[in-house]
Amino acid sequence: MQKIRIGIAGYGNLGRGVQASLAQNPDMELAGVFSRRALDAQQVGAPCMALDAAKDYRDQIDVMILCGGSAHDLPQQTPELAQWFNTVDSFDNHSKIPEHFAAVDQVAKAANTVALVAIGWDPGLFSLNRLLGEAVLPEGKTYTFWGKGLSQGHSDAIRRVAGVAAGVQYTLPDTAAMDAVRRGEAPALTMYNSHRRECFVEAEEGADRAKIEHEIKTMPGYFANYDTTVHFIDRAELDKNHAGMGHGGFVIRSGTTGEGTHQVTEFALKLGSNPEFTSSVLVAYARAAFVMRQMGQTGAKTLFDVAPGWLSPKPAATLRKELL
Amino acid sequence: MQKIRIGIAGYGNLGRGVQASLAQNPDMELAGVFSRRALDAQQVGAPCMALDAAKDYRDQIDVMILCGGSAHDLPQQTPELAQWFNTVDSFDNHSKIPEHFAAVDQVAKAANTVALVAIGWDPGLFSLNRLLGEAVLPEGKTYTFWGKGLSQGHSDAIRRVAGVAAGVQYTLPDTAAMDAVRRGEAPALTMYNSHRRECFVEAEEGADRAKIEHEIKTMPGYFANYDTTVHFIDRAELDKNHAGMGHGGFVIRSGTTGEGTHQVTEFALKLGSNPEFTSSVLVAYARAAFVMRQMGQTGAKTLFDVAPGWLSPKPAATLRKELL
Repeated sequence: MQKIRIGIAGYGNLGRGVQASLAQNPDMELAGVFSRRALDAQQVGAPCMALDAAKDYRDQIDVMILCGGSAHDLPQQTPELAQWFNTVDSFDNHSKIPEHFAAVDQVAKAANTVALVAIGWDPGLFSLNRLLGEAVLPEGKTYTFWGKGLSQGHSDAIRRVAGVAAGVQYTLPDTAAMDAVRRGEAPALTMYNSHRRECFVEAEEGADRAKIEHEIKTMPGYFANYDTTVHFIDRAELDKNHAGMGHGGFVIRSGTTGEGTHQVTEFALKLGSNPEFTSSVLVAYARAAFVMRQMGQTGAKTLFDVAPGWLSPKPAATLRKELL
Repeated sequence: MQKIRIGIAGYGNLGRGVQASLAQNPDMELAGVFSRRALDAQQVGAPCMALDAAKDYRDQIDVMILCGGSAHDLPQQTPELAQWFNTVDSFDNHSKIPEHFAAVDQVAKAANTVALVAIGWDPGLFSLNRLLGEAVLPEGKTYTFWGKGLSQGHSDAIRRVAGVAAGVQYTLPDTAAMDAVRRGEAPALTMYNSHRRECFVEAEEGADRAKIEHEIKTMPGYFANYDTTVHFIDRAELDKNHAGMGHGGFVIRSGTTGEGTHQVTEFALKLGSNPEFTSSVLVAYARAAFVMRQMGQTGAKTLFDVAPGWLSPKPAATLRKELL
């Protein structure tokens, strides 16, 4: 059988994760890596091309997986590349999804391509579980908890505090809040009272640690109103214990049926590597994009439009026999 | 907007659960209950018709939800009713799904109806998570744990033991096995070493309790090879504490990405009522069956063929804005 030919656009953590994931999926092959930088094909282990010249390869790629960032790359790259390719991207700026979807949809419909947007785990598998929870238990509340995971934005904020040499911040779900939800208490939670923030900070020599701690804990928009802990550690410990890219979280639907019968659905992720997991989701949905295009579909799509069977390389009859 | 008109075929726990669930879904309405028994329409609170006469109502029902049993009712009823209606059933005899699917598919294709089979939570939402886990993390193992929940078959087996007046059996997942899976140890589990069995037994007066306990614990096919606990209690306690219909379980995918990075996905259900939850799933998928027929689809389908968006009454743009 012909393999699905995948292109990677952008070769950072996510692009390398897609490459690793493709090696786990024998029905797909990496046809080329497209980058704005000049890459060494031998080092990459795949043909490397200039991103600007991508359209010249449109007959050699079935699905292009976009591995750029949501702030600057994808709003420009997805509409550009959807002219020539079926695409999958991990656009994760929740509030701008409708706008991104509309821009991509117009291009993809005109070009007869399928463009899956906002694929990953949040937005992504978490969104899918928010939808399932609400559809199956219409009377109830949905809770999303994130972590334990490193937050890039909050880590950056710490590093801007005077006297801080380096630092990272973890977002953690409040376990007492999660347990209350699981017991069906349906508490009124905000981000503030359902998550904790834990900071690991290397102070500059001679810096006033009490002042740093106070400045972090009271920082508006980032730490004020949160239960925040600040640990001072040295560079060696920071490099050794806080360089990982683990993440995760929980989507819990707490609902009632009949005469107030309590029902709970819960989806949880414990990820050793956030970018590698996101990449794996992108690759599974690239298979779906290929299937959807073969079915004659066109335009922008999200996970909500993807039947689960299209994600698997196995024939429908095998799925029914083995997994149903 | 025209409501989706739902029929219920069979009015036991599941049928009553569907009726209760429809009351939570304002885009749907109960058009009639079809039964082999003569039902009192006033008591039921809906028009009641003879199951034999169902086809006379084919212009008044958009989707018929079949609430009979998998052993005797559904193998006959689903092919029969799929001639006249779009249908949803909860056929749950895993090993016979391919056979049931084929029989229903033939009828539904000829009749231009959509027949969703094997809908519920296992088979059902658990199957969906087994598929997702495997598609996203192709290198890994999937584990399904059931419970805590009452098993009808095992409860019946207890009650056949001489000296037993009444009794129930709970299947429980082994928490040590679950924790090993969550830690990524990928243990080789069988049903025997991943689940415990707990029995609550009312002994007949003067019966030999040690003998009853021994007979239960060594019963081949049911309890032998399991970690089984037997508690003797009286009828009052049995009625008070063991009449519920709670159930639940876990689907865990433990996989690796990249250079052995450990990744875990987990889906869990904690159900106050097994039939009421299954009914709620059936109702959400009845909405999907209606959508699929409107799209022009025909034939037998499973959850693997259903895009998540079709389960929700909300328009796609609203779903993208609110839930993605």
